[in-house]
Amino acid sequence: MKNIKMTIEYDGGRYLGWQRLGDSDKTIQGKTENILTKMTGSEIEIVGSGRTDAGTHAKGQVANFKTSIDMDLPTMQEYLIRYLPQDIIVKELEEVPERFHARYHAVGKKYSYYVWNNVVPSAFERNYSFHYSEQLDLEKMNKACEKLIGRHDFIGFSALKKSKKSTVRTIDEISIQREDNLLHFTFIGEGFLYKMVRILMGTLLEIGSGITALEVIDTIFESGIRSEAGMTVPAQGLFLDEVYYN
Amino acid sequence: MKNIKMTIEYDGGRYLGWQRLGDSDKTIQGKTENILTKMTGSEIEIVGSGRTDAGTHAKGQVANFKTSIDMDLPTMQEYLIRYLPQDIIVKELEEVPERFHARYHAVGKKYSYYVWNNVVPSAFERNYSFHYSEQLDLEKMNKACEKLIGRHDFIGFSALKKSKKSTVRTIDEISIQREDNLLHFTFIGEGFLYKMVRILMGTLLEIGSGITALEVIDTIFESGIRSEAGMTVPAQGLFLDEVYYN
Repeated sequence: MKNIKMTIEYDGGRYLGWQRLGDSDKTIQGKTENILTKMTGSEIEIVGSGRTDAGTHAKGQVANFKTSIDMDLPTMQEYLIRYLPQDIIVKELEEVPERFHARYHAVGKKYSYYVWNNVVPSAFERNYSFHYSEQLDLEKMNKACEKLIGRHDFIGFSALKKSKKSTVRTIDEISIQREDNLLHFTFIGEGFLYKMVRILMGTLLEIGSGITALEVIDTIFESGIRSEAGMTVPAQGLFLDEVYYN
Repeated sequence: MKNIKMTIEYDGGRYLGWQRLGDSDKTIQGKTENILTKMTGSEIEIVGSGRTDAGTHAKGQVANFKTSIDMDLPTMQEYLIRYLPQDIIVKELEEVPERFHARYHAVGKKYSYYVWNNVVPSAFERNYSFHYSEQLDLEKMNKACEKLIGRHDFIGFSALKKSKKSTVRTIDEISIQREDNLLHFTFIGEGFLYKMVRILMGTLLEIGSGITALEVIDTIFESGIRSEAGMTVPAQGLFLDEVYYN
């Protein structure tokens, strides 16, 4: 059996998210598995680095699958590009050691979130950003990022009710770049809890627009209570950019 | 009567082009006129700087219309943003002298064309660029641009059968910028004939990939024969960026 690592880009707009839902063709995992099953002639199950929510995009989702098919990787990639829809692109295929597991072995992830920060919306960014027209204090938001970076219990910044597993995570980097009306937020860390990036984003925006004080972050770290944090911003501004492995 | 100049951005993907077709809601002019007619309570006709083809986008199409409605411009813009679909955005409104005419008074236009130049397509650029995977000789293409710049009879680079009006035009600038796999072509000139930018683009790509010799440009200027020029590249890579007025 060969173990094949795939790097996948997708426009999540039309999909119910990464994770297969029964026979549905409306998830990225489901769609990809169906094509791989046709290609190899035997049922293929793929392991993703993690789920992405309905509407979330990816520039570098990673998954792996096992097959004994005798087909070289360029031919396989060509087949996948031809038969997958145009909004799911297999960017790279690589043969990896049999023990490689896209989820267990992921040591970090990089996400981007885009905010269209102008009163007048954009016809082109509407599916790839969140339109938020309030004026934002970037200096204050950068201070909030500094508070968030590091090792903390992020349960209050997640959509988990409670968790038996640890909800302590390390964020290595959060940065904000402005290009005209488009704000680009980057999050790098070992892993993120359910909806954590979108809730962190909502909190940053509410701090930046003055709805919430900077100190709310300390309060949430202490109390762990989700309701203190900001809104969950929409999925269409979120991109899984990269998954890191050793 | 007030004369109002609008700057409009649109994602042309869902539309049959700028130009109204009967009662159809599937053109940008038609859609915009229908909303303006509702807003003002009297039939509004708008004059665009020129047509754009089905599928072509705009970041700065300009149009004007006359109305006697007593409504300030910010309120009008808010109304238009609210009631037009999200892929048509009125970016700016300005009251102009009554004689201003968006088509007659336009003295120049700027277009962009985007080419996704990689074997592996892009999930995100698919609706906003032309996927062309041949290797391109940019130096040769820049030489071709130099030949095209200036005052020439562009009939051979248009989809016009023949024309009673002059088909002589001046191109002031054609430039090519590469950002990773995305090539950005800019065209600036006093005006462009029917499908001229898309045929110039097709010719540039065929020269860049070695299908056609650089000298084909001189031949077409001499003969005026369309069939010598390159393919008409798809509309989805084309953007009307700006319309110039004195």
